[in-house]
Amino acid sequence: MHGWGDVVAAFDGLEQGDSGLTALLRAAGSVLDAKAVGALASGVAAAPGGVDPDGWMVLVADDPPPALRDALRAVLAETRAAADDGLGVSPAPPARLGALRERLAKLGVDGFVVPLTDEHQSEFPPGRARRLAWLTGFTGSAGMAMVLPECAAVFVDGRYTLQVRDQVETGLFEPRHQTEQPPGDWLAEHATEGMRIGFDPWLHTADGVRRLETACAKSGALMVALDENPVDAVWPGQPAPPLAPVVPHPFDYAGSDSAEKRSQTAAALRDAGADAAVLSAPDSIAWLLNIRGGDVPNAPLALGFAILGADASVRLFIDPRKLTEAARRHLGDAVTVEAPEALEAALDALGTAGVAVQAAPGGTPAWITNRLKGAGARLVDGADPCVLPKACKNTVELQGARNAHIRDGAALTRFLAWLAREAPSGNIDELSATERLLGFRAAGELFRGLSFDTISGAGPNGAIVHYHSTPATNRKLEPGTLYLVDSGAQYLDGTTDVTRTVAIGEPSAEMRDRFTRVLKGHIAIASARFPAGTGGGQLDTLARHALWQIGLDFDHGTGHGVGSYLCVHEGPQRIAKRLAEAPIRPGMIVSNEPGYYKTGAYGIRIENLEMVRAAPADDGAERDMLCFEALTLAPIDRALVETKLMTGPERAWLDAYHARVRDTLTPLVDNETAEWLAQATAAI
Amino acid sequence: MHGWGDVVAAFDGLEQGDSGLTALLRAAGSVLDAKAVGALASGVAAAPGGVDPDGWMVLVADDPPPALRDALRAVLAETRAAADDGLGVSPAPPARLGALRERLAKLGVDGFVVPLTDEHQSEFPPGRARRLAWLTGFTGSAGMAMVLPECAAVFVDGRYTLQVRDQVETGLFEPRHQTEQPPGDWLAEHATEGMRIGFDPWLHTADGVRRLETACAKSGALMVALDENPVDAVWPGQPAPPLAPVVPHPFDYAGSDSAEKRSQTAAALRDAGADAAVLSAPDSIAWLLNIRGGDVPNAPLALGFAILGADASVRLFIDPRKLTEAARRHLGDAVTVEAPEALEAALDALGTAGVAVQAAPGGTPAWITNRLKGAGARLVDGADPCVLPKACKNTVELQGARNAHIRDGAALTRFLAWLAREAPSGNIDELSATERLLGFRAAGELFRGLSFDTISGAGPNGAIVHYHSTPATNRKLEPGTLYLVDSGAQYLDGTTDVTRTVAIGEPSAEMRDRFTRVLKGHIAIASARFPAGTGGGQLDTLARHALWQIGLDFDHGTGHGVGSYLCVHEGPQRIAKRLAEAPIRPGMIVSNEPGYYKTGAYGIRIENLEMVRAAPADDGAERDMLCFEALTLAPIDRALVETKLMTGPERAWLDAYHARVRDTLTPLVDNETAEWLAQATAAI
Repeated sequence: MHGWGDVVAAFDGLEQGDSGLTALLRAAGSVLDAKAVGALASGVAAAPGGVDPDGWMVLVADDPPPALRDALRAVLAETRAAADDGLGVSPAPPARLGALRERLAKLGVDGFVVPLTDEHQSEFPPGRARRLAWLTGFTGSAGMAMVLPECAAVFVDGRYTLQVRDQVETGLFEPRHQTEQPPGDWLAEHATEGMRIGFDPWLHTADGVRRLETACAKSGALMVALDENPVDAVWPGQPAPPLAPVVPHPFDYAGSDSAEKRSQTAAALRDAGADAAVLSAPDSIAWLLNIRGGDVPNAPLALGFAILGADASVRLFIDPRKLTEAARRHLGDAVTVEAPEALEAALDALGTAGVAVQAAPGGTPAWITNRLKGAGARLVDGADPCVLPKACKNTVELQGARNAHIRDGAALTRFLAWLAREAPSGNIDELSATERLLGFRAAGELFRGLSFDTISGAGPNGAIVHYHSTPATNRKLEPGTLYLVDSGAQYLDGTTDVTRTVAIGEPSAEMRDRFTRVLKGHIAIASARFPAGTGGGQLDTLARHALWQIGLDFDHGTGHGVGSYLCVHEGPQRIAKRLAEAPIRPGMIVSNEPGYYKTGAYGIRIENLEMVRAAPADDGAERDMLCFEALTLAPIDRALVETKLMTGPERAWLDAYHARVRDTLTPLVDNETAEWLAQATAAI
Repeated sequence: MHGWGDVVAAFDGLEQGDSGLTALLRAAGSVLDAKAVGALASGVAAAPGGVDPDGWMVLVADDPPPALRDALRAVLAETRAAADDGLGVSPAPPARLGALRERLAKLGVDGFVVPLTDEHQSEFPPGRARRLAWLTGFTGSAGMAMVLPECAAVFVDGRYTLQVRDQVETGLFEPRHQTEQPPGDWLAEHATEGMRIGFDPWLHTADGVRRLETACAKSGALMVALDENPVDAVWPGQPAPPLAPVVPHPFDYAGSDSAEKRSQTAAALRDAGADAAVLSAPDSIAWLLNIRGGDVPNAPLALGFAILGADASVRLFIDPRKLTEAARRHLGDAVTVEAPEALEAALDALGTAGVAVQAAPGGTPAWITNRLKGAGARLVDGADPCVLPKACKNTVELQGARNAHIRDGAALTRFLAWLAREAPSGNIDELSATERLLGFRAAGELFRGLSFDTISGAGPNGAIVHYHSTPATNRKLEPGTLYLVDSGAQYLDGTTDVTRTVAIGEPSAEMRDRFTRVLKGHIAIASARFPAGTGGGQLDTLARHALWQIGLDFDHGTGHGVGSYLCVHEGPQRIAKRLAEAPIRPGMIVSNEPGYYKTGAYGIRIENLEMVRAAPADDGAERDMLCFEALTLAPIDRALVETKLMTGPERAWLDAYHARVRDTLTPLVDNETAEWLAQATAAI
């Protein structure tokens, strides 16, 4: 796990801090000196920061006095000012590719694969891992580059085929559609028999490496695992590994203590015939140990690895600077904290002991599975043992989710009321709307930040499924258009994700038809009853049926799992056309978000989060049935509903949902919003 | 492929026939002598016979004169009278298991696996392959026995847990539920480390062997491929391999000649990087070569194997006695006919040449894949290249299907009208109804037999999903009950499969509610539009939704593919909860058969076959959509429809379907039936 500790080394040559800081540290009883604080600040600067900008200071001293706080603030500001990570430049300067090729030659390989993620397959990787963006300039959320001596390509999916041409130097990187022009075809054209193509085994899973090897098949090239990441070697301003405090997640929100969770997952391990499991997903570790962190954007994660033993013990491999004494006490005796560098020896020891180790082949870095195999461990097939119990929330987590959604719904409703008042002026644009919505959320209790970058799409921008507004693309909300806003937040008691589409001025008949068909799909999912064991793939069609009838569809999944003050996307459940066999189980939270997108014109999506629960048994019922309970509470734009397309039960669903929204939220909003809400939730 | 040729050898000691027969054969110019005719008759006796009991005689002489026909009839009758296959005895005599164990000891193994199928994974295997039935007495359509030195078990699915206890000696064979008490668990209880459990590699696919090996994991037992099938060695009356004439399937029904099909599948092979494919599915061979046979019940198949080359040549390995000169001419020069015994050398030659061979791991006998691997062939992953083009019928086949369904619908409608007249007498029972229905069908043109054993279930027997009426279970059709009849036929121009459920007398409100919910599911499938690429698993929920709403479901798939004068069950498409990812493509024929079963009371199923076609494009349609066209034409019992549960579009569907049934069938039925049909198809 190259890179850990580099930052400390980089400070060896630093001038010995401010003697004032040294004195302040000593006075506060800190174990750190000025040099260590400087190193810490590099990591803190590489973390997103979150809602409490001084929160990191607990890593210096328990309760730093005001003068020390001022000094620490200055150190962090200085560190930030001095940082030059080279990100945010599109296209990237061509010299970077040249430097990489020189490094590859030194390492004795012909090529290199640059994926988008990090050692934890993170959805929102830290800056340090944004090698693809640094090398190419491409900032989308999915992609991969391949570099050969004379050519290079960047592979993206359908969402990014236009964006990639704007962001990368196409003379250097050929833009390719990853499924229509896959890496294997490109290699067949450009690689030759016996070519050695390097990859960083920390950044690819065993399954991922197999896919790369398959891609090599026609060209006869070979994939070669490298001991260093050559991008790191040529990226002078690469950010440090992020450092944010690890904080205990209180029982009042978690609803189950870590000892209970460890004992439950250890029992599952034993059932699977395994002696230990390597955990590389930070949200699994966070759930298992009831801890949260702040290393990456949008999700309260502390990056690290862990080994769970069949005896319910845990070895946590994490930068110890992220743990306060309080956090260590919270972890307790059954959890040992070790430096990330100790993982290698721990894996070797598992191998030497010849034990059976579970390491999910779709999530664990190939470096880890290879190390285990090399050391003599027996690998046991199986998913990360935390994934399923994490997905099935307990009653405390579910009540937290309800509470968080009420506050989130109140904030969104205030925003929608504001929008209804202000949009006719024609002065609102995507970015100002985003800011306003954030303001309403941030004013609420237990708010800890957004759960993903808000999608705020006016008119044709709403048709871009993963649109991110920038000053260059920012549009005004204009009469006769639709505005789509997909947003969510992290609260200590839950994670939210909601999409509403609203008419600005008078919508067209087509818009109302399409919106109503999307709504019918949403209601079909929301009101579904289905037997235990049903997978999300079996429900997906309900969301599309009304669109299919007139030859329309949408090109994304209908729903994804959502964590409890964790990741806004989590498995194993999903509602989608394919690869959605995992049963939908009681306690799971899943999004319900059908849509319709007319390129160049408008986008529609209606998203609530749904909680899965047992359906009440009717007379004559023979099977245990499940159903959904909507967590999200916010009005659905009645101006877009074409009543005559709706069945009686669909109209009844909408009226009942709106009544619930009104009854729940009215006491929580200002009078002006309450008045608007009364109209917005009137029966249709 | 042990067993082929044994029958000829068995006749070596036979007295030299009737000198009269010899003279008749000589006079007719037959190449066969009396001894060869005797051997042939054993194979003919082992085949089901079909609609033309003398059809086999073309294998003796082109146009046998009456005297020879009489003599041949006598030989066949004598052969049949002498046959004593030991089948049809439930439970089987215990001595059989004892004899098998003795044989196993001689072969040096501790146990043996007895599956239900044959070398072709046939759904309706010939008598020779019914080893499980002979050994145990169990006659269900799915199951497996495992024999160890001191104990044995028979594994069946949920449909057969009661039947197996009636049919097998439970003191000898422990009855087990194959998913709840799987073979692996039984082996873990009864087998010991190192035990050698034999299996016949002709009767298991590579995937199947892997599953057996997995089942051995906990016990530490080993699966051992045997060179002989030890059941065959101890089954004195085992039927011969069946012999029925191979007949050309005319272009007027096939719609594409074999050269075109061979060239199309050979191109697919080349695209997959394969030089050859081994075909072990008789329906694939029948489709590819435009031939039909009569070796097994219910499907017009000629058992054999084939090797398709990437040059579009075919080597057909089949008992040459099944081919007339006309059949050989039809096959042409690009198809060589070789004895089954020649397959082994052909596989070895492929290996020696080091070519790439496709052999579907889920359908090819492990014996073949092992032989190929052992000889040095490179196995290429991939499905049988005939499966997909066979499933996507051409316009001639589709028109044939329409025509066959019109005739079949007229026969079924005559039956339903007869039932409406006669059932009130209380004198109709399941078996007499079955016979009557067969009579109506057999009177139609191009009829070639049934496509499966008719399911004729009165009252509670209708709730047994795979019920087969016997004199012991036969019930009268009584007032106040439901009668379920699921039946189908083979016609030269198509294969049918239809289920109707009719009220005898006055149905209860519950029956009408349940029937209507099943009908709503049927209509949801029948009227679905869906984008190209949609798999059957995505449609399945539409069939269940109305039942799920009140806590009900049914425990079988919603639909299966159907062949064109071939198997009534074919892939790759199906409509089911799971394992139904194969896209539903234009030209496919698939059943639509939701149901509901109340144990001990009644069963409901409504089944039409549907043809897949492009949906007409509406204004504003953006995607290529597919839809179904109902092939099956027969009234759906209006007495069971609870109109108030139906939506307007559902009522309109039923009325339009009934109008089409009436308009199409009225000209084809007698006046009495036409009068009944007019009422049965009146608008609701």
